[in-house]
Amino acid sequence: MTVEPTTTLSSTIARVRDLAEHVASNVRVQGWLSNCRSSGKLLFLQVRDGSGIVQCVVRKGTLDDDLFEALKRLPNESSLEVSGTVKADERSPGGVEMSVDAARIVGEAAEYPITNKEHSTGFLMQHRHLWLRSSKQAATLRIRARIIKSIRDYFDSRGYVCLDAPMFTPAACEGTSTLFEVDYFGEPAYLTQSGQLYGEAGAMALGKVYVFGPAFRAEKSKTRRHLTEFWMVEPEIAYAELDDVMDIAEEYIATIVSDVLADCRPELEALERDVSKLEAVVPPFPRMTYTEAIEKLGAAGREVPWGEDFGAPDEDYLSSTSDKPILIHRYPASFKAFYMKRDPSDERLTLSLDMIAPEGYGEIIGGSERSADLEFLEKQIAEHDLPRADFEWYLDLRRYGTVPHGGFGMGLERVVAWICGTQHIRECIPFPRMLNKIYP
Amino acid sequence: MTVEPTTTLSSTIARVRDLAEHVASNVRVQGWLSNCRSSGKLLFLQVRDGSGIVQCVVRKGTLDDDLFEALKRLPNESSLEVSGTVKADERSPGGVEMSVDAARIVGEAAEYPITNKEHSTGFLMQHRHLWLRSSKQAATLRIRARIIKSIRDYFDSRGYVCLDAPMFTPAACEGTSTLFEVDYFGEPAYLTQSGQLYGEAGAMALGKVYVFGPAFRAEKSKTRRHLTEFWMVEPEIAYAELDDVMDIAEEYIATIVSDVLADCRPELEALERDVSKLEAVVPPFPRMTYTEAIEKLGAAGREVPWGEDFGAPDEDYLSSTSDKPILIHRYPASFKAFYMKRDPSDERLTLSLDMIAPEGYGEIIGGSERSADLEFLEKQIAEHDLPRADFEWYLDLRRYGTVPHGGFGMGLERVVAWICGTQHIRECIPFPRMLNKIYP
Repeated sequence: MTVEPTTTLSSTIARVRDLAEHVASNVRVQGWLSNCRSSGKLLFLQVRDGSGIVQCVVRKGTLDDDLFEALKRLPNESSLEVSGTVKADERSPGGVEMSVDAARIVGEAAEYPITNKEHSTGFLMQHRHLWLRSSKQAATLRIRARIIKSIRDYFDSRGYVCLDAPMFTPAACEGTSTLFEVDYFGEPAYLTQSGQLYGEAGAMALGKVYVFGPAFRAEKSKTRRHLTEFWMVEPEIAYAELDDVMDIAEEYIATIVSDVLADCRPELEALERDVSKLEAVVPPFPRMTYTEAIEKLGAAGREVPWGEDFGAPDEDYLSSTSDKPILIHRYPASFKAFYMKRDPSDERLTLSLDMIAPEGYGEIIGGSERSADLEFLEKQIAEHDLPRADFEWYLDLRRYGTVPHGGFGMGLERVVAWICGTQHIRECIPFPRMLNKIYP
Repeated sequence: MTVEPTTTLSSTIARVRDLAEHVASNVRVQGWLSNCRSSGKLLFLQVRDGSGIVQCVVRKGTLDDDLFEALKRLPNESSLEVSGTVKADERSPGGVEMSVDAARIVGEAAEYPITNKEHSTGFLMQHRHLWLRSSKQAATLRIRARIIKSIRDYFDSRGYVCLDAPMFTPAACEGTSTLFEVDYFGEPAYLTQSGQLYGEAGAMALGKVYVFGPAFRAEKSKTRRHLTEFWMVEPEIAYAELDDVMDIAEEYIATIVSDVLADCRPELEALERDVSKLEAVVPPFPRMTYTEAIEKLGAAGREVPWGEDFGAPDEDYLSSTSDKPILIHRYPASFKAFYMKRDPSDERLTLSLDMIAPEGYGEIIGGSERSADLEFLEKQIAEHDLPRADFEWYLDLRRYGTVPHGGFGMGLERVVAWICGTQHIRECIPFPRMLNKIYP
């Protein structure tokens, strides 16, 4: 149904987020009804437009009576335009409310399936296309977008070239058990698990690059830290050694957190995030070797045999000892990737690093200095049973002008989860893909 | 082989692009040998570091004789560090050259396969990981990165939220003949052809969004305008109508061109691009309806029956009539997507738009106002034989708060090709994927 207004909508369209700049002016907001409450001759419409929510007060008699009644019984999430005078109001979120003098119902909604009562996660995920409208979900996606901008600005302003690695690859970079296979015109191809090797070719051409795009892992495990499709950021820097990579990772993460703190206060509030935890994320971050971490775990009664990887509880313990992210470096080669450079002072070790987020959010960065040595890599490819022909181009990077170089990979959704204080990374991407989960 | 310097390398590391800021200072450049020429007691090393190329002059006697001789016979693309005094030199690209007083060979290259002679495209594509180092290829990728930044800045600064659409989808958005199928834990899934429908859900939650990520088309045709994997930008705006979408598309394209002109002069020079062609790309762009375009073609002796789509030669003719991109709007529904809103003044027409680049670079933008009408879309889904169950979530967007909205899609590589003046879009993405082409 549509009920036309008897008064005229303002021709000045404003976004809710900017309303404080329009106090005492008459503006129009285009949005959706988030909630409606009536009290005698007043209607309190909560109107959201995607940038924020504003309370709009309608006094009976201001509008045509039919329209007033239609608004009063309008289902949530109906679309509408309201216009009126913006008034400063310190009690309101955003500091303003609107005194309505004209309104138009654009599209009356059917009974909205998401209500104030508790819904199961399965139900909400099945309605992900609508759940995005909820204030916490929308806040998470706005913070995600701010983090993406922060990442790109960090690299763009420092001379890195954005280099998009291919999604279709002939071979696995990080092990074959979690590969998605595609029918590529009758031949098998695989979806990328990491753009790093391509990033290395890019760094030899352009000096400093970053790959930023989707990556895929056919993870059969259902954990709160895994998605089958996620976004990964992978800088790669020619002439960088391990210490350079650690310094960059530290400055980079601190910059992201500081940008979100500067620009996303309303979103952090909507998420009830304890911002003091984020304000603590200032360089320098604690650094320790793998071997020191093993000793630290042992002293706390958590025995991990030297040469084995940490489990998530071990990482959680280590991260609980600091209110900043921690950098762990020089992991044993036994469980690290074939291309990592060995530590010249102990050949059992790689020149690798992981960064563990505080508050139990786990690993957010993994990286290393890469081996620049052709013979070593040829041996590694053979020992790891990798298909040599698929790696010839990668070996060319050592045949023609090899240089020390390194970089890291950061899983975007894990960082969004940590910064937002969200337990499950499935809420940190607009349309999560998991085992048995591909709709909507 | 490594020959250590007898003199010491400068501790100030500078990028070639920034050398003009270091005139009369002693700095170190870390890079690769692009070319070497000797003339009596002088060596002229062209050193590239990914940000640019600088001529480095070595005078015999300055360095150890062994090192001088090693540099003289050093293969191209060997990696090396040189340091010395930066001197202003108007004849040099970048306006500087370096007078070398110390050098170090980092990694001597094997005989480099790409030389100054003509190579076949097949050969260069097989060596894409090395071809990226060539000055035109590197310039193209730097312009690509600048365009990506320009796109994101355009939207980020105007209140759009970056919304990443999924790569795995249950159904086709743009027709089923060009879908890539993936084995998703035993069930078929498809790689996305467009994020638009997800962008629409995002616009209802966040007001204005843009999707920017890879998209896939199993194109069997080998043309210079097609890739199987490409990057697509898709803004979607709640409460926008066709004219709004056209205005945005025009301002957006003009902004990208103007940013590249401002920041990428060395790259445009390397590509020998006629920048006057780009300087002409200033709003307003010519606009015409599909029907007017048909008449224009007919007047030029190019008969296209009303109701049929234009071919590439028709678009090339239309674009040749203007030195700016042209906007064609209101195409017949017969060959346009199911979700487009019909023109209320003529139901045979959609409220659609295409933008055709100048100089024969073809369609770079396609978009429309979307239908906000539930019943119309239900009918369309049935008539187009689309799997209704997969579109229920999309129909929910009309059930719950439908609003006028619209947007467009832009193929990134086509815009890079046009701006760079590159004939084939395979050179406009770091690692192109085509029929029979997945290596490296």
